[in-house]
Amino acid sequence: MRENTAGAPVLPASPTRGRLRPLGLDEVRITGGFWARRRHVNATATLDHCRDWMQRVGWIGNFRAAAEGRIPRDRTGREFADSDVYKLMEAMAWEGGHDAETAALTETIAPAQEPDGYLNTAFGRPGQQPRYSDLEWGHELYCYGHLIQAGVAQIRARGEGELAKIARRAADQVCAVFGRGGIERVCGHPVIETALVELARATGEQRYLDQAALFVDRRGHGTLAEIEFGRAYYQDDVPVRAAKSLRGHAVRALYLASGAVDVAVETGDEALLAAVVRQWEAAVARRTYLTGGMGSHHRDESFGDDFVLPPDRAYSETCAGVASVMLSWRLLLATGEPRFADLAERTLFNVVATSPSEDGRAFFYANTLHRRRRGAVPAVDADSPRAESSLRAPWFAVSCCPTNVARTLAQLPAYLATVDDHGVQLHQYADAEIATGGLALSVRTDYPYGGSVAVRVDRTPDRPWTLSLRVPDWTRGDTAWLTAPDGSRRAVAPGTAAITRVFRPGDEIRLDLPVRPRWTVPDPRVDAVRGTMAVERGPLVYCAESVDLPNGHDVDAVRADPSTAPQDGPGDTVVVAGDTTAYDAQPDDFWPYRPLDAPSGPQAAQPAGIVLVPYHSWANRGPSTMRVWLPTPGSPPGDTDDDR
Amino acid sequence: MRENTAGAPVLPASPTRGRLRPLGLDEVRITGGFWARRRHVNATATLDHCRDWMQRVGWIGNFRAAAEGRIPRDRTGREFADSDVYKLMEAMAWEGGHDAETAALTETIAPAQEPDGYLNTAFGRPGQQPRYSDLEWGHELYCYGHLIQAGVAQIRARGEGELAKIARRAADQVCAVFGRGGIERVCGHPVIETALVELARATGEQRYLDQAALFVDRRGHGTLAEIEFGRAYYQDDVPVRAAKSLRGHAVRALYLASGAVDVAVETGDEALLAAVVRQWEAAVARRTYLTGGMGSHHRDESFGDDFVLPPDRAYSETCAGVASVMLSWRLLLATGEPRFADLAERTLFNVVATSPSEDGRAFFYANTLHRRRRGAVPAVDADSPRAESSLRAPWFAVSCCPTNVARTLAQLPAYLATVDDHGVQLHQYADAEIATGGLALSVRTDYPYGGSVAVRVDRTPDRPWTLSLRVPDWTRGDTAWLTAPDGSRRAVAPGTAAITRVFRPGDEIRLDLPVRPRWTVPDPRVDAVRGTMAVERGPLVYCAESVDLPNGHDVDAVRADPSTAPQDGPGDTVVVAGDTTAYDAQPDDFWPYRPLDAPSGPQAAQPAGIVLVPYHSWANRGPSTMRVWLPTPGSPPGDTDDDR
Repeated sequence: MRENTAGAPVLPASPTRGRLRPLGLDEVRITGGFWARRRHVNATATLDHCRDWMQRVGWIGNFRAAAEGRIPRDRTGREFADSDVYKLMEAMAWEGGHDAETAALTETIAPAQEPDGYLNTAFGRPGQQPRYSDLEWGHELYCYGHLIQAGVAQIRARGEGELAKIARRAADQVCAVFGRGGIERVCGHPVIETALVELARATGEQRYLDQAALFVDRRGHGTLAEIEFGRAYYQDDVPVRAAKSLRGHAVRALYLASGAVDVAVETGDEALLAAVVRQWEAAVARRTYLTGGMGSHHRDESFGDDFVLPPDRAYSETCAGVASVMLSWRLLLATGEPRFADLAERTLFNVVATSPSEDGRAFFYANTLHRRRRGAVPAVDADSPRAESSLRAPWFAVSCCPTNVARTLAQLPAYLATVDDHGVQLHQYADAEIATGGLALSVRTDYPYGGSVAVRVDRTPDRPWTLSLRVPDWTRGDTAWLTAPDGSRRAVAPGTAAITRVFRPGDEIRLDLPVRPRWTVPDPRVDAVRGTMAVERGPLVYCAESVDLPNGHDVDAVRADPSTAPQDGPGDTVVVAGDTTAYDAQPDDFWPYRPLDAPSGPQAAQPAGIVLVPYHSWANRGPSTMRVWLPTPGSPPGDTDDDR
Repeated sequence: MRENTAGAPVLPASPTRGRLRPLGLDEVRITGGFWARRRHVNATATLDHCRDWMQRVGWIGNFRAAAEGRIPRDRTGREFADSDVYKLMEAMAWEGGHDAETAALTETIAPAQEPDGYLNTAFGRPGQQPRYSDLEWGHELYCYGHLIQAGVAQIRARGEGELAKIARRAADQVCAVFGRGGIERVCGHPVIETALVELARATGEQRYLDQAALFVDRRGHGTLAEIEFGRAYYQDDVPVRAAKSLRGHAVRALYLASGAVDVAVETGDEALLAAVVRQWEAAVARRTYLTGGMGSHHRDESFGDDFVLPPDRAYSETCAGVASVMLSWRLLLATGEPRFADLAERTLFNVVATSPSEDGRAFFYANTLHRRRRGAVPAVDADSPRAESSLRAPWFAVSCCPTNVARTLAQLPAYLATVDDHGVQLHQYADAEIATGGLALSVRTDYPYGGSVAVRVDRTPDRPWTLSLRVPDWTRGDTAWLTAPDGSRRAVAPGTAAITRVFRPGDEIRLDLPVRPRWTVPDPRVDAVRGTMAVERGPLVYCAESVDLPNGHDVDAVRADPSTAPQDGPGDTVVVAGDTTAYDAQPDDFWPYRPLDAPSGPQAAQPAGIVLVPYHSWANRGPSTMRVWLPTPGSPPGDTDDDR
């Protein structure tokens, strides 16, 4: 219904082609509910928290030290520390209202940029490694990518300012050095690809797109060194067009795939788009946690082989969740297919929303699905290890996740709806006001705790158009209902429910989704959760947390009885039948394996209700143990529970 | 029946106290069977292989470069590369017959030792970090530990020579620098502790024991830095006496525990011994793989939490298997309890024997229990990543395992038998000749493929003594028989079977162990293998390997039927009922999780026999997939297989 124009505040990706067109932050507002609360905390607490920590640990000061010739002596943080400052600035741009802080940060950064546009506090100065001498681990182009994304956010949100100019000079440096005939290699950590395409979109400059396309096509040809994790770690093992699934470091894989979609859409490269869709399908069908989380290896933060999805060693990095939403969003825009919004929803509610604490000042870096041990309380005044805790930590030595959550929440309204030549599509449900061109809608919902979505037409052109609503895949096996403005009601299947008509102001369309607790069974090839089930309710994954168990029991004692349907409990809880007493007073055997016919197994159980809470809310009540997948009777064979 | 004497060829640990006394390599010979074959390959292929690789990759040359002032320029390998040269020399000393090579290597090493005894090619020279400036990662005392162990082996096997003198000078350096009032810290990687106690035993010098005791007591007090893996990684989180279980990096934990036992035994410290026994019990009951393998985290090569034993992400490092045998052996000597020999047996047959290839020129570094993907063939002319392959590799960038296997196989005869004031104890079964004092025995057995062990008395004093035979714990639930020289037979329970009498030359004692295939069920708290069973036969763990499956099926398609007992198959194979066709032609769903009541699950199956092979023999027939734990019907609930 409208054309994108460069400079319009459209985000987080603004393709010039594709099936659907995104709306900007001036067109969609979230007005209440689940995400409004989180966005409020993000705007009022998380942004300041990130800035304060980066002042304190010196990552902002690195730029000053660089400009003043105090580097390497006074530099702090890992080689990619610059990028978190840029991600914070991107978040501030989308969030709005941070002009003074942005100006101050820009003034800090600007003097560190060298005359030819090079900008990185970790390389190239006396006493440092030379520029671009360690593409495997140096993260120089990765840092540029986040700088450029921040610049694009500024262009879209406020019009081009100083930060955008710094970003353009850096992008010009990249094109000059890494163009044809230059350094014909890639960066160990993708993200420059999406950034350059977005900069091309925001500025209309073709050469940035060309450079992004070069980077996408160069990868997979072994221009990076072989390392212990293998070249698959940075996707340099197989060309993007030839890969069968997502693999290697999850964030890298997902950023790269996002960049490949951007390039494919802008260049009309159907084969490249199809390759990424194929990889997404394979990864979602075989390498994705129930939460939408991706990446099962702690060692290298990478995808595992097919069906390697251990819940207790789930890495499921927060940044991989952010990156997965970026990819799904791009694929949704490119294809219009609701399955991409389905995965984005799952990932937003169960990974992105899980990471930050209620006060927005602590974060999960990894999002395990099974925590076996109450961890120590992370230090409030020191950075924490990134993966091993049962509580969120305020900051990490590698602290990519807090700023990534911040920029995602800041841009979240843009993910709710799109337009095309036929009308408006609602993909994610939240209380919202949507106004674009001659059309305005308001959405009221109790989502995700309830399934009622009411869309009121506030302003409408006097001609027929189509309102499309996603019917989530999680309604499969149950019934969703769509009520038209005339009160007529029809059952709608998972996918897209559409109403085409001449709408009138005041018309209300209502989608009723069957939000009730349900048992979910894993594919039997997911060895790590055989003989267990999970509970979901609407788009939310639930979990058992030790603080809700009677008599100080731990979650490893939980056994659930799936012969009874899970029931709604108090508040947002769910209650399942089961017990927690099977291991009471059972001493260890010498050896945890026994002959099939030897008597053993847990003690007789005392059935009781087990309270489950939404997974995203776990670990907000002190150190605890937690599990999503609940062992169920009948397994393993030979258990005395078989007789129950 | 005899006293240990310093200088006698007794190994691998020669306590001056303790319940049992070890025998030397001049007292026990392995004459045939399973271990004789592997020891032959070790002596004739592996030792040369290790030497050739360390020549080629420059680790031996490092010593020459150090002496000639070409360091750091010409140094190769990681910071602990020196240690593998020492471990090879230890293996050569135990193996015997390598005097010229040992002399040549000693001549290479000697000039690199500095006048004050310091010896390490990675630290302390111009252009290198200062000595002892990185105790967390520098491995300087670790390298000394292996040097000293090599020196002790030389003392025991050949009498003190040049290598032993180098080792003593290094040990003196350690005592001078790390004694009371010196650097009151520890090395990030334990092993110096066992080495110093052994040197004290071999030389009679108390100060080496005192220094070892200092190191044991100092650890756990946070003298090493906090790191991302936590101080538990190097056991510096909790004092040895206070720890509840083995934790952190598995090899470090097991070497440290071995050193603590050595100190406890030599100093009569019952509390320290009890602490290690308690940790061993907790780790064996909750943190040990069916194979005896220890360490379930790839990220930091560490133990996981209790019951975190993922088969497909088993690290089970070969060196942790070696270290576990070292610990169990020490605990067996200290206590006389057969459970320690039980675990050593399991670990020797299923970890230590698994690592080397049939030709002794390639090795597993990690010993996974489930390989899902055929890996590439490791390069024969370049070192390999340490953990990710379905084939053994000839050498690794971190190549601790080949030389550790070599030294273990070289000293293996010493693990078979011990003596005490009452007689002789047989702990491990192999064709062997045992002669000590006025007593000689010969053992003939088809172990581990058969369970018949015949012990003939060849020479005996003319007074009563006791022959004790371990009845393995794996016989539980079945019956073992002991036949006395007079032909009388009695059933014997797991533990120790003993006969006391005045033996006569020619007397034969016979132990018949019930070696037949059996189903084994895991503790239900081992989440990662719920709903599966394994097959064992005698001390051997079995596995399904893709090369034995019909129609190119992969092991992930295997489903076993435990309602039928496993049967002996051709050769050393076992056959179980089951099928491999459940996933034939089943396309992927969008999402690998489904509502409980949704129709799904594998296709109908075609029952067939599935051939299993001994786990230690897998991956000898080219790239393959493999699994130890076989999914069984009845799980997960809801599977169509339930009806079968």
